[in-house]
Amino acid sequence: MRQDEGQGAGATLANFVAATSWADVAAQSHEAKRSILNFFATALGSAYDPAVTSALRTLSPFSGAATSSIVGRPERLDALGAAFVNAISANLLDFDDTHLDTIIHPAAPVAAPILALAQARGFSGRDVIVAFILGVEVECRIGNAVSPGHYTRGWHITSTCGVFGAAAACAKLLGLSANGITNAIGIAASQSGGIVENLPTAAKNVSVGNAARNGLFAALLAAEGYDASARAIEGPLGWARAMGDEPDLERLVGGLGRSWEIAKNTYKPYPAGIVFHAVIDACFKLRARLNQRIDDIVSITVQGSALLLARGDRPIRNERDARVSIHHCAACALLLGAAGVPEFTEAIVFQPDLVSLRQKVRAELDASLPDGAARVGIRLASGEMLGETVMAARGSLADPLSDLDIEAKLRDCSRLSGTAWNAGTIIENVWRLDALADVSSLMNSHNVAGKMVSAPVRTALGKN
Amino acid sequence: MRQDEGQGAGATLANFVAATSWADVAAQSHEAKRSILNFFATALGSAYDPAVTSALRTLSPFSGAATSSIVGRPERLDALGAAFVNAISANLLDFDDTHLDTIIHPAAPVAAPILALAQARGFSGRDVIVAFILGVEVECRIGNAVSPGHYTRGWHITSTCGVFGAAAACAKLLGLSANGITNAIGIAASQSGGIVENLPTAAKNVSVGNAARNGLFAALLAAEGYDASARAIEGPLGWARAMGDEPDLERLVGGLGRSWEIAKNTYKPYPAGIVFHAVIDACFKLRARLNQRIDDIVSITVQGSALLLARGDRPIRNERDARVSIHHCAACALLLGAAGVPEFTEAIVFQPDLVSLRQKVRAELDASLPDGAARVGIRLASGEMLGETVMAARGSLADPLSDLDIEAKLRDCSRLSGTAWNAGTIIENVWRLDALADVSSLMNSHNVAGKMVSAPVRTALGKN
Repeated sequence: MRQDEGQGAGATLANFVAATSWADVAAQSHEAKRSILNFFATALGSAYDPAVTSALRTLSPFSGAATSSIVGRPERLDALGAAFVNAISANLLDFDDTHLDTIIHPAAPVAAPILALAQARGFSGRDVIVAFILGVEVECRIGNAVSPGHYTRGWHITSTCGVFGAAAACAKLLGLSANGITNAIGIAASQSGGIVENLPTAAKNVSVGNAARNGLFAALLAAEGYDASARAIEGPLGWARAMGDEPDLERLVGGLGRSWEIAKNTYKPYPAGIVFHAVIDACFKLRARLNQRIDDIVSITVQGSALLLARGDRPIRNERDARVSIHHCAACALLLGAAGVPEFTEAIVFQPDLVSLRQKVRAELDASLPDGAARVGIRLASGEMLGETVMAARGSLADPLSDLDIEAKLRDCSRLSGTAWNAGTIIENVWRLDALADVSSLMNSHNVAGKMVSAPVRTALGKN
Repeated sequence: MRQDEGQGAGATLANFVAATSWADVAAQSHEAKRSILNFFATALGSAYDPAVTSALRTLSPFSGAATSSIVGRPERLDALGAAFVNAISANLLDFDDTHLDTIIHPAAPVAAPILALAQARGFSGRDVIVAFILGVEVECRIGNAVSPGHYTRGWHITSTCGVFGAAAACAKLLGLSANGITNAIGIAASQSGGIVENLPTAAKNVSVGNAARNGLFAALLAAEGYDASARAIEGPLGWARAMGDEPDLERLVGGLGRSWEIAKNTYKPYPAGIVFHAVIDACFKLRARLNQRIDDIVSITVQGSALLLARGDRPIRNERDARVSIHHCAACALLLGAAGVPEFTEAIVFQPDLVSLRQKVRAELDASLPDGAARVGIRLASGEMLGETVMAARGSLADPLSDLDIEAKLRDCSRLSGTAWNAGTIIENVWRLDALADVSSLMNSHNVAGKMVSAPVRTALGKN
């Protein structure tokens, strides 16, 4: 049989999604809960970011019945609006989960719409977990099929592939047939967008939010009878080729149900680009060895792969720049011994001693180091040289965050954001998500409804 | 000055949009009214199409205050929802206007959101005309800059470029500063999508509707402070290059205010792909010469450019196929002497005498004929040969529809759709649009509110 006489890739994915039930994914459910816990951590952390508030204010007059919570806040919107806003807050600080093969942040575009939809319609925690695992599977497999060219060409892969995962997950949650799920995935192909050029700006949020919102919209339209091309993904004038990619169909549909992309998900300990984490870890080790002699530092040399240098060797004009700066990551880890949310806010980023230490950092290519590794060398005034090399950063697959680490991250994010949602209630509900008859209890984890418990740490919107 | 030291293309467009007022565009206002009249014609014609009804049903639970009319129907949605639905109905039958240099259908994505917004906020007819002309200008210039490669690569250019026009037009209507308009255009770049592979399906409507909806959304977000990259269109990781195009910046921003893209707009007399119009016109001429001898036809040969053959030489499984079929266009023009909305509905498309006549049609390449021209030859049983060549089809820039033709088209579409909106009221209001203090009178052109005056001619949703 010739390939073009078989069913389309969308239908192959959809048949798998339609046929998969809790029993098939139960072994993946703990990782799904970790991903969802991390989703809540980052969404809480940015709940009161001005970019979230602006999106909420923009959408409020355009919301139907307000069925679905805005994570970390007292407001609600309809499920489409809540999907948009919660995907933004979960992804805003680039602190969300990472699928390393594609650099997709899987949870934000998938968890946001299914939680919004499940809350609106009273679906169970198991329904949500099954849909989430399958949405991540579809999203990351489509990403695998077009990586690495897709991202480097300028496509923001979390946005462009996220919409497929959201569509598949929401179609599953709605109980659509395999044909309906195929159509939802095909409709998603006509809604895929989002460019890397806009990443340093608020416009980035729009494509991430759209991925979540439009994936749900695709499923709703498919439920109403909207159809799509059977070859929307891989056809000659379809999504992949229009985007500039020759899709790898084996990576797209090979081994479905035997390997799981959710198992490759990772969680960041630091709200910085993932390639900088090894730099931070190396600097933490050096800081311990420096024993307060920060003022004696003459120069700091950071070595890494071309990817590290391409992403991280640039001037710092704002918080977004700091999160993708070799210089800032090295300096704050050395000077402050911390690289959490506060260390990437303007108040600290432009602190004079930190600015001054950053000026001593120099980035250098070491092509022998793999992506994700880093070597940091320090020369002291005494002439002494210190060096540390980190091959697998904390949070990577080789050194994953523990469940308690993710809980602690959620508590930190929650505290810093000033949310009135109760971190403990969320943590407890996520760990027993498969036992929840209705996810509404999770989506109503307010401490004191409508009241912030502290002033949030604000980041800047639209400063650059 | 090096190009990359100048302002971005988005800012150049935005400065022009911000600085342009009624006096600058008054000379283009008659063409704008013709475009808007044609927009209402096609939107009315599809008002009760199942694809429109499904979209409306999908969006209704997700609408805020229902400020904005669904053209041709009694229902209303909020402005974002109405923009989506009205863009769908205006474009659904491929009967809308055409910018021939790009094959963009300019009005649907631009007129739908500005009319929805203007109705919601009480803007004047002049405000709408100015915004419409500028939106079409931005949309078509961006299309010019990436044509012809963009469409042939698989991008549905009406969708991908329409969102920019919608964003610019809505930002103008909202009175944003040049900086705000720049941001709206840049946010649009992160929302651009839509693929040719999905054109024969309902998913096509989604990208057209999104272009309208998301352009308005971009402007609303920009009004709330959302920003975007200054080089979202032409930057190294920006929209054009991600899409696979090397943008022609001269075509993008050269001669702004000296030439107008709206002046190049054309309106279709037949609801078929524009390249088939010359085939239909040639067959009308032949029909007159045949003098009823249809049964004597042995064979029909249609000659045209590679574009004609690429688009039109395919089997007919449904109405959408018929609208892009050389065979059907030739046969219905010869047999029925008509090629209006009814001639592309299933009841007629699969009429046995028409199916039989289609089987006598053969398509042949004549590379000497330009795109948009056609030669049709008929051989009769007597051995007699008849031939007609049409170089400029009716409705082309060389042979444009008259104002009365467009009025008649609107009346035909209105009658066939079964809408309760009053065609005469719409026509009257569009011609005096620049005198309307509030476009609400135009958007409330109901005959008898909520009552259809006849059963609509229905087309099929999702049959293939």
